[in-house]
Amino acid sequence: MASSVTIVGATGDLGFGLALRLAKAGVPVVIGSRDGDRAAEAAVRVREQVPGADVRGLANPEAAAASDLVVLSVPFASQAATLRSLRASLSAGTVLLDVTVPLATAVGGRPTRVLSVWQGSAAQQAQELVPDGVTVVSALHTVAARHLSDLGHELDEDTFVTGDDRAAKARVAELVGRIPGLRPIDAGRLEMARITEQLTALTIGINVRHKATAGLKVTGLPNGSAWS
Amino acid sequence: MASSVTIVGATGDLGFGLALRLAKAGVPVVIGSRDGDRAAEAAVRVREQVPGADVRGLANPEAAAASDLVVLSVPFASQAATLRSLRASLSAGTVLLDVTVPLATAVGGRPTRVLSVWQGSAAQQAQELVPDGVTVVSALHTVAARHLSDLGHELDEDTFVTGDDRAAKARVAELVGRIPGLRPIDAGRLEMARITEQLTALTIGINVRHKATAGLKVTGLPNGSAWS
Repeated sequence: MASSVTIVGATGDLGFGLALRLAKAGVPVVIGSRDGDRAAEAAVRVREQVPGADVRGLANPEAAAASDLVVLSVPFASQAATLRSLRASLSAGTVLLDVTVPLATAVGGRPTRVLSVWQGSAAQQAQELVPDGVTVVSALHTVAARHLSDLGHELDEDTFVTGDDRAAKARVAELVGRIPGLRPIDAGRLEMARITEQLTALTIGINVRHKATAGLKVTGLPNGSAWS
Repeated sequence: MASSVTIVGATGDLGFGLALRLAKAGVPVVIGSRDGDRAAEAAVRVREQVPGADVRGLANPEAAAASDLVVLSVPFASQAATLRSLRASLSAGTVLLDVTVPLATAVGGRPTRVLSVWQGSAAQQAQELVPDGVTVVSALHTVAARHLSDLGHELDEDTFVTGDDRAAKARVAELVGRIPGLRPIDAGRLEMARITEQLTALTIGINVRHKATAGLKVTGLPNGSAWS
């Protein structure tokens, strides 16, 4: 049996879209929510769109303990509290894929601006908050929730993956690469999330300005070299 | 006669590549350098590659005074001093296209890291340093000098353009759009240069990691809407 992926915050737009896409790709998915009932309802909604999907919903601590790859997809304002609540559930060896973006909306500001995080990025803050032995990888900042959650939409974009542990990063790249039309790009160490997280604000601004749902793509890479 | 564009720092790699591409597109180019003789030599090198090009080289102050669109393409460490030296040459109404990136190399650091600029970005620092009535626009951070200066290379990428003045931004977009394969994307106000300037560090990291010369492209824009 393929190992499952837990998505904490899969009742939100981005997390739910990711659950849909992964379920469609045949990945067993565990949906986490603060409220176990809401998580179970989200799982039902995934199965409605992806009949036969291996997906279940659990309260966050149980969900986080159920997989060794856990996606954290919560608003920045909730990131620290959520991670603290999951400390006992994240065992050593777990890979945490953090997709949090420190948008200024967390403090009532604009979604085209970001907050300065003391550690440098939301991902680096996450690394500080997880138990020893848990490795943080950061990705999926420019993939629109709207596109992810519309299974009829053909994705055609890249996502920058950053992290300090090559194996953890490769694991995330493999997962992301299972979603058709989404190409993982190795963008370096976790500290590069200082740049990649800001791309959410940039693309939101472009969306507003161009009435679009933009994504990003890297040109000029040799064929097949997107993952180094 | 079409109005000329001055490139201050066109003896550097990016500036020279831009001079070549603009000359090839039929834009009259004035090359500026601290040393007028070096500027004149660079103009000769442009004409060698683009026979019949309308290009001349002048010392920076004369070069800056010669056009009402001036590109500033110098290392970040020289940006402030260069702009101070040009104050008397930049008249009200001039558009300054700043392509400066605050790479950490300015202080001996890595090219995959950026410095924090008090004003938020190199472009915003430029806006503070230019005389009243001069408008700063920022662009061209992810276009590789190596690709620009190789006229045999077919460009196929976008560049994010930011600025507070719509007319100035449109002027820059029109200029950039004259280079085949390079699409200007309106990325918002000048403060967004805080994000777009960092993309140089991101693409340099990707280049090293993937042995490539990367560029960026925005997907998901409605046809013809790249410039709003």
